[in-house]
Amino acid sequence: MSTDPALMTLTAVAKAIAEKKLSSVEVTRSCLHRIAEWQPKLNAFMAIESEPALKAAAEADAALAKDGPKGALHGVPLAHKDMYYEAGHVSTCGSLIRRDFVATTTSTALQRLKDAGSIRLGTLQMAEFAYGPTGHNAHYGAVHNPWKLGYVTGGSSSGSGSAVGARLTFAALGSDTGGSIRMPANFCGVTGLKVTWGRVSRAGAMPLSQSLDTVGPLAQTTEDCALLLGLMAGPDPEDPTASAAPVQDYVAATQASIKGLRIGVPKAFYVDDLDPEVARCLDATIAVLKTEGADVVQVDLPDQRQLTAACQLVLAVEAAAFHKRWMIERPQDYGPQVLMRLQNALAVSGVAYLEALRWRGAALAAHVAATSGVDAVIAPVSPLVTPSITDSDVGGAPGAEAVIQRITRFTRPVNYLGLPSLAIPTGFTATGLPVGMQLIGRSFDEATILTIGAAFQRATDFHARVPTLP
Amino acid sequence: MSTDPALMTLTAVAKAIAEKKLSSVEVTRSCLHRIAEWQPKLNAFMAIESEPALKAAAEADAALAKDGPKGALHGVPLAHKDMYYEAGHVSTCGSLIRRDFVATTTSTALQRLKDAGSIRLGTLQMAEFAYGPTGHNAHYGAVHNPWKLGYVTGGSSSGSGSAVGARLTFAALGSDTGGSIRMPANFCGVTGLKVTWGRVSRAGAMPLSQSLDTVGPLAQTTEDCALLLGLMAGPDPEDPTASAAPVQDYVAATQASIKGLRIGVPKAFYVDDLDPEVARCLDATIAVLKTEGADVVQVDLPDQRQLTAACQLVLAVEAAAFHKRWMIERPQDYGPQVLMRLQNALAVSGVAYLEALRWRGAALAAHVAATSGVDAVIAPVSPLVTPSITDSDVGGAPGAEAVIQRITRFTRPVNYLGLPSLAIPTGFTATGLPVGMQLIGRSFDEATILTIGAAFQRATDFHARVPTLP
Repeated sequence: MSTDPALMTLTAVAKAIAEKKLSSVEVTRSCLHRIAEWQPKLNAFMAIESEPALKAAAEADAALAKDGPKGALHGVPLAHKDMYYEAGHVSTCGSLIRRDFVATTTSTALQRLKDAGSIRLGTLQMAEFAYGPTGHNAHYGAVHNPWKLGYVTGGSSSGSGSAVGARLTFAALGSDTGGSIRMPANFCGVTGLKVTWGRVSRAGAMPLSQSLDTVGPLAQTTEDCALLLGLMAGPDPEDPTASAAPVQDYVAATQASIKGLRIGVPKAFYVDDLDPEVARCLDATIAVLKTEGADVVQVDLPDQRQLTAACQLVLAVEAAAFHKRWMIERPQDYGPQVLMRLQNALAVSGVAYLEALRWRGAALAAHVAATSGVDAVIAPVSPLVTPSITDSDVGGAPGAEAVIQRITRFTRPVNYLGLPSLAIPTGFTATGLPVGMQLIGRSFDEATILTIGAAFQRATDFHARVPTLP
Repeated sequence: MSTDPALMTLTAVAKAIAEKKLSSVEVTRSCLHRIAEWQPKLNAFMAIESEPALKAAAEADAALAKDGPKGALHGVPLAHKDMYYEAGHVSTCGSLIRRDFVATTTSTALQRLKDAGSIRLGTLQMAEFAYGPTGHNAHYGAVHNPWKLGYVTGGSSSGSGSAVGARLTFAALGSDTGGSIRMPANFCGVTGLKVTWGRVSRAGAMPLSQSLDTVGPLAQTTEDCALLLGLMAGPDPEDPTASAAPVQDYVAATQASIKGLRIGVPKAFYVDDLDPEVARCLDATIAVLKTEGADVVQVDLPDQRQLTAACQLVLAVEAAAFHKRWMIERPQDYGPQVLMRLQNALAVSGVAYLEALRWRGAALAAHVAATSGVDAVIAPVSPLVTPSITDSDVGGAPGAEAVIQRITRFTRPVNYLGLPSLAIPTGFTATGLPVGMQLIGRSFDEATILTIGAAFQRATDFHARVPTLP
């Protein structure tokens, strides 16, 4: 066992607490200690709740001694993206507008993790209203990459990526509407799971775009993500879009072999205009998967650029509809970039919106046909290596808008199609910044991509490396 | 038994065929004879399929003799609104654009009636693409009211109302997006059921507005509508919006007593600016329901004008999105009024559309709260008595647009809320034109409004009167 409990995986720490090898108080103290060291540099937390967390940990330890573990996460301290409502607690949603918003209900996803015994460590930073891909925030400042200060985390789950990367929390909920889990996972060197649309209830999570929003975890390992998904997945009376499709045994899936699984490498788009370090990493990842027994073949995907455009249009209109009243009443309380994105969407016609939405069925059918010969598709999460906070500051750096468009290029098509995708750390640049790949799966078949991700992580240690305090 | 089988109710004729008191061929001949007499005056049929119908009837008689009845409608000839696709048959949808459109699939609703043994008599006229409330059709001519030639049938299920009214078919499928079943039922003196949104599969039915479209029957009696609903209701793998909510025993519901049921009369809107003959009819209907044992009380509904506006906006945008390509490629093939309605919708923003759609939940909650003390709400179907075809010809008569707006005033709020509503004949004007009322029910509780409608029809004979050939 590591000397610092905070460095353990979620799976390992949960087991150690359940087996009373570590107390929840020890574990929580260890996290709080790391948070105290790192937070001034990263700005990853929105709120640190030291005293309540230690109190909850002590209660968890007492309850464990008395009644045994409440569930699979007994006494494990966790912090989540600050958009998962918990009754009686503030959810800022990364905004000024909701700075003092006290939730009256609790998010279903969060409640299920609480029901499993997890305790609350605080809340994590995020892009304002989850509407930004880099980790900038006009109100609360940019979040920094734990691998290199001054570099972006990716967004919108910026705090989730940064805090898991720096081992300040064992895992964190993020949300992925256009790439908001996979991008921070990619840039911060952690594992992030974007689930199939409808796999996890969105009840009590701040909406950005109801046709695209998904709730999912970021954690050190694929196994940790599988554990969390198993706790959260399934129908919910509070969210009619939460599917009753059978929940798979995700943790068991992470133990399975990938021998004979077929992984597709796109012939175009996802392999075009890659930074050379990303291209090398893709090749190296493919080589590992082959060594582990997977068949890697080429796939010819339909035009992904149209999917990106459709995703952006649907997202923008739905976000603007949700924000309409605040846009009228409190425009000065938005960051200028978020307000501009929202206002631009006001000009889109209802017919264009419905056309973009309706094309989804045909686009998914075309994707399914094109990928019928493979179990998953591998692609970089982003064509770029991590940009600096300055270079990607829209309204600041002149080329920033172009950087942002390129960053999100490979994530949006997956949201539009509603598919699951697992982002895993697959290497580092020469300057020590993480590079990730995504495994894009079949609808409601998270198990297969978790199998592949776990096999890769058994063969490599990119996910296990820990950044050093600068 | 009546001397003319075509004058029987659906329930009675189905029973007579099953019991071999009448053959399907006799029944079909009787319908074809009436069609031959009435069609030149009414223009109710789009296509009359005499030979195939008689052949199918002979086969039905042979099958009955050999294997017994296939289902509850064995050998019953029916014609439906010409927008229910049947593989291998033309569905014009009342349009020039689809004049030669041969369907490759069969509508689920239609298939279920076929599975019950019904046979095909032909297809019925309708407003172009179901987008018009009067019964005018720029391509195929207006349908006439069987009670008075030169007067409208109501739309968009114009042929369904006219043909059932004249007893040319025992029943007919219509569709109700803004009132398109209830208005023809009202003006043609027949019973029409607008079901809860999601109660009957829309698979294989021409879409107008996916958020509002409902499939339902027009027939002589409430019992006949109950019989058809029971055959059609329930989930469908081809239509994810077809609800799995429990299907009630609708025919049994028509036998139940209304003693103790509470019926609400709105304090405003539905009782404002009524034609005096409609107002008298409402009072008389209430008096009958009281005599039959119902408690009639006043209800204070939320503002219905906003519901109408929201319904129109959602309908227009969804229709325009569906028609977009044809609007660009074949504008000259639309009737001018339909094209104008579609084009006007192009200017509506996506945000306005989503706002109108999203308000639905809150509006339904307010309606449910306001009507929690009653089992159903009674209201006229239309504030007006039947206008003439000339007076309601938009682009012809100067006041026609205003007439149309008034005609649809009382039906659209129900579509926006997604509630079921049963239109029943409740009287006649001094000039012999029918006047109907609607019974608006609770979501997925068609049974209660069918109970009330059937009780009213046991006490009155408005539904049983037959127009005379002019």
